[in-house]
Amino acid sequence: MQSDEQEIRQLVTTWMEATKAGDTKKVLGLMTEDVVFLVTGQPPMIGKSAFAAALQGQSNQERPEFDGKSEIQEIQVFGDWAYMWTKLSVVVIPPGGAPPMTRAGHTLSILRKQDGKWLLARDANMLSQVSK
Amino acid sequence: MQSDEQEIRQLVTTWMEATKAGDTKKVLGLMTEDVVFLVTGQPPMIGKSAFAAALQGQSNQERPEFDGKSEIQEIQVFGDWAYMWTKLSVVVIPPGGAPPMTRAGHTLSILRKQDGKWLLARDANMLSQVSK
Repeated sequence: MQSDEQEIRQLVTTWMEATKAGDTKKVLGLMTEDVVFLVTGQPPMIGKSAFAAALQGQSNQERPEFDGKSEIQEIQVFGDWAYMWTKLSVVVIPPGGAPPMTRAGHTLSILRKQDGKWLLARDANMLSQVSK
Repeated sequence: MQSDEQEIRQLVTTWMEATKAGDTKKVLGLMTEDVVFLVTGQPPMIGKSAFAAALQGQSNQERPEFDGKSEIQEIQVFGDWAYMWTKLSVVVIPPGGAPPMTRAGHTLSILRKQDGKWLLARDANMLSQVSK
């Protein structure tokens, strides 16, 4: 049986792989219904349905290619809740031959264990564009 | 006796007032020794001593004037740990007559209760400059 910390590390791996594969359904299965995404310079994205709406309508041709690398700095678990701090680097290759964009920085996330499964509940994203 | 949520709200009020008053010692008393501040576009600031070093050496003449408004969006407490999401707006008036700068956005913080007192332990700051 995996420890909570191992399960949370697996959640991050699954999230990255599913995002890379364009498997929206799998990514949506990794967050709570009331998830909140906080990003610099944008209003909060509140709820799984808002995340789904932001992705829906993209065909495979329109979908940007994605690659990312997450280095977990800290995980602390308190019963059914946890927080995680990661160093994250993401490369997005837009469709149609536009140049790739790299964003890097840190994230601070709150995770919640529901029905025995760890899910992302709150996410603070402090990534900024990396100049070349 | 105050509830944990009330004590955390008081921590935010005290932090803002002490920062405004330039009371560095009081602000330092509101964070854990191992506090981590995460900000977009900058490396993490790790430890109370790093926070203190960043402020030391400023005389009262050099110290910028500060005003801020924090709207708490959510507080969740789990025993001796809590997280808090706030909407924050900060105005900094640099010394020497330079124009004021306003930064606004959201924060996600982890708080820890040590010896009966709530302290800031991790802080994700997603503020960005507000254009006029």
